Amino acid sequence: MASSYEALRERLRTINNINKAGAVLAWDQQTYMPPGGVHDRGAQLATLAQLSHGMFTGDDFGELLDLAEDEVKDLAYESDEASIVRVTRRDFEKQRKLSADLVGRLRRHATESRNVWVKARQDDDFPAFAPFLQQTVDLSRETADAYGYEDRPYDALVDVTEPGMTTADLEEIFGTLREQQVPLIKEIVSRPQVDDSVLHQPYDEAKQEAFGKLVVGRLGYDFNRGRLDRTVHPFEIALSIDDVRLTTRYDPNFLSMSLFGTMHESGHGMYEQGMGRELAGTGLARGGSAGLHESQSRLWENIVGRSLRFWKAFYPELQRTFPDQVGNVPLETFHKAINKVHPSFIRVEADEMTYNMHIMLRFELENDFLEGRLEVRDAPEAWRARMDEYLGVVPPNDREGVLQDTHWSTMLGGFAGYCLGNVFGAQFWEKAIADRSGIPDEIEQGEFGSLLEWLQQNIYRHGRKYQPKELVQRVTGKPISTQPYIRYLKAKFSEIYGPL
Amino acid sequence: MASSYEALRERLRTINNINKAGAVLAWDQQTYMPPGGVHDRGAQLATLAQLSHGMFTGDDFGELLDLAEDEVKDLAYESDEASIVRVTRRDFEKQRKLSADLVGRLRRHATESRNVWVKARQDDDFPAFAPFLQQTVDLSRETADAYGYEDRPYDALVDVTEPGMTTADLEEIFGTLREQQVPLIKEIVSRPQVDDSVLHQPYDEAKQEAFGKLVVGRLGYDFNRGRLDRTVHPFEIALSIDDVRLTTRYDPNFLSMSLFGTMHESGHGMYEQGMGRELAGTGLARGGSAGLHESQSRLWENIVGRSLRFWKAFYPELQRTFPDQVGNVPLETFHKAINKVHPSFIRVEADEMTYNMHIMLRFELENDFLEGRLEVRDAPEAWRARMDEYLGVVPPNDREGVLQDTHWSTMLGGFAGYCLGNVFGAQFWEKAIADRSGIPDEIEQGEFGSLLEWLQQNIYRHGRKYQPKELVQRVTGKPISTQPYIRYLKAKFSEIYGPL
Repeated sequence: MASSYEALRERLRTINNINKAGAVLAWDQQTYMPPGGVHDRGAQLATLAQLSHGMFTGDDFGELLDLAEDEVKDLAYESDEASIVRVTRRDFEKQRKLSADLVGRLRRHATESRNVWVKARQDDDFPAFAPFLQQTVDLSRETADAYGYEDRPYDALVDVTEPGMTTADLEEIFGTLREQQVPLIKEIVSRPQVDDSVLHQPYDEAKQEAFGKLVVGRLGYDFNRGRLDRTVHPFEIALSIDDVRLTTRYDPNFLSMSLFGTMHESGHGMYEQGMGRELAGTGLARGGSAGLHESQSRLWENIVGRSLRFWKAFYPELQRTFPDQVGNVPLETFHKAINKVHPSFIRVEADEMTYNMHIMLRFELENDFLEGRLEVRDAPEAWRARMDEYLGVVPPNDREGVLQDTHWSTMLGGFAGYCLGNVFGAQFWEKAIADRSGIPDEIEQGEFGSLLEWLQQNIYRHGRKYQPKELVQRVTGKPISTQPYIRYLKAKFSEIYGPL
Repeated sequence: MASSYEALRERLRTINNINKAGAVLAWDQQTYMPPGGVHDRGAQLATLAQLSHGMFTGDDFGELLDLAEDEVKDLAYESDEASIVRVTRRDFEKQRKLSADLVGRLRRHATESRNVWVKARQDDDFPAFAPFLQQTVDLSRETADAYGYEDRPYDALVDVTEPGMTTADLEEIFGTLREQQVPLIKEIVSRPQVDDSVLHQPYDEAKQEAFGKLVVGRLGYDFNRGRLDRTVHPFEIALSIDDVRLTTRYDPNFLSMSLFGTMHESGHGMYEQGMGRELAGTGLARGGSAGLHESQSRLWENIVGRSLRFWKAFYPELQRTFPDQVGNVPLETFHKAINKVHPSFIRVEADEMTYNMHIMLRFELENDFLEGRLEVRDAPEAWRARMDEYLGVVPPNDREGVLQDTHWSTMLGGFAGYCLGNVFGAQFWEKAIADRSGIPDEIEQGEFGSLLEWLQQNIYRHGRKYQPKELVQRVTGKPISTQPYIRYLKAKFSEIYGPL
């Protein structure tokens, strides 16, 4: 490669090092930082963000990018060089569109509004939060205008986390899911209910932690290049390809919280640990989109981790670890318990079947806000109406309704990936077992090497090289489709609730 | 204040934020970072160091400094503004003197040489390390030349960690100490020996940790603005005035390692937690010199922590924590055990009385290297000769002799502060109890507020505002003197070994 491309790579390495230093500070803030550190940590993070943003959006960076673009113009679309320049160009143009003034106002709003939201939720006081939600709507519209869009304001926002996806794409996906899932949920709710009391017993936290580590280590998460810590709000964070950390939380009286939470984060973690080294030090060496990332956490947590065949391998070990709790509980009872469907108010506690409905509700209200069909003051009522329509339950207060998520204290447009992840995950899974028919049997033996290698080769190593639509087409040979997910849901929950 | 000074402050805040981000990365690297992270972490730290160095040594920074200097020129020497400009000027000039080329070679030498040293020490193979020690000597000479000096090359090196101190100052201090301590040690060794077997028993690590935290919390270390973690090589590190962390290590069969190690680090920590907020965000908001820093770790560890009155307060709690180990051991026996004098080979394990001799040996050999009186190949023999002369013991191999410290794998000149700390600490202590005669009685009650407040007011809050000589003069009204330390040693060890 000629010199401008190499110079660009070098500049990106520097920027990436600054961003990753910021990630170390963010990880520390949420795990070990003492309370007193919070003020200065904010200043340290702001300095790093400003340095990185300044280096990435400067005119000199733009000139370097022009030169590098010229150098790689004859290379194949799939080549590392062309991809790095192409995706960097996209990021550059996007970041340049937000003025320093807007970025500053967004940051101040986030800080102030988040504090108000925490208290309003505590107090179940929507009117206290309403002016800040209004500002979130206004700032989201302004941000969408700054990015620019052809059709719908939401297009501009979702493009940040799901490059190339549009509001129309999402409406089609969510429309099909709604049409299929609402009747399925109604049918399941009408059938005899699953007893999941086995999960609600005292479970020693240290043993939960040891078992969780055992499981995710066996899945293929590499502890030599990562670690697992405790935090209030679990997350995964990559401090480099070779230092990808997970966090989780433990409920001493409920097994699922940490067990499936840890598997979920390990899916994110294996994705980040699987980045191609040729992308290291660029903005491409991370998950391709929020939805693609979520496809991996959901695949490992739900498709693998809540399957009967998975527990055929791991249930004996769980019984040895918790003999008093599950020693005499049949595998089938346990498997049903971890797959109980129960329409409820809180998104983050929702089961696999009802989860998507929480997302489409939010997606719809966000578009209504942005396009002026819904006033902030009417949001609680709109929320309740949608909950009733989709899930047949109505939250008794706003704390368990419109106030439950932190997202709306800062920006609209952040939910779609959670639902897309389910769709992408099932589509990838169907292709993986079509390509490698031995995978299900291997899982039953507690072996995950074939699946992980398939994911690594087809998805993980590409990082952000391809946009979600491109990647799904390349991997599965088909456009994004909800059908594999619907097929998966029907088959899976027919096992639990009888033929659907 | 007019605008250039404020602009300088703002620039310093940014630089400080970058440096502190680096400190977070360094802390993480030595506590929780998984093994895989080591390579990329090195790159992240190098990027931050380069950014900070570039911002601090650029011509534009120099111009800003000129303008600010002009603005504060009529302010009192003691004022925050004048001090910040004065000390920043000193740091600026010093950092500008090292070329990027030399800094690069120093960094490469440090990395390479350190690995060779680790292996050479393991293998007790001095000849393998000798060429790297030679390079350390050569690079130290080159660094001294770059900094510049009037009299002795060591002057330039020690000035980095002990601003304003010269080789001649140190020779005078070490000379007096040697004259006094060598006969004292000989006398003590000739007397009946102390039995410290009480310390060498199984001590549960979790209980050691809990007791250590209890103690340093009572001394005044603020856990709301800090924390204590485990590491291989204990250290203290300030990530901000409000986030100052300690680390320690536990020996399950030896109480002193973590107990006094944690108190030692807490002394460093209280110093950093006590910085004046008016210095925050500048290079002045840290300990005044290596020796001043060590004066605080030694004062809290040795003068307070190994005193009989301290243990009158804490021994009952220790007995409750470890009833099998010390429940039937009289306080006096325990107090003698923790103050046993025993000339030995390893500096970091040396007792309070013999420790200084290890330092002056190294100081003397470093000057011999720098001034051409000692060839690297003759270092092992010179080491053994000095050990015999000062401590009456000769290490049986180089692993426990000339190869024991990591320092000489990178740079000469780093040892003086360890000895100066003992001298400064005793001088401050004598003044503190002269000013506040209630301090000893308070310590006997397990109360440390008066002492901590005195140290905070007289020393901690000033950070790097004053050089060691200035600070000692300001605080005690006298120049640096070894006499308080000699008085302290004689009184202390007369308690243990009979009148000296």
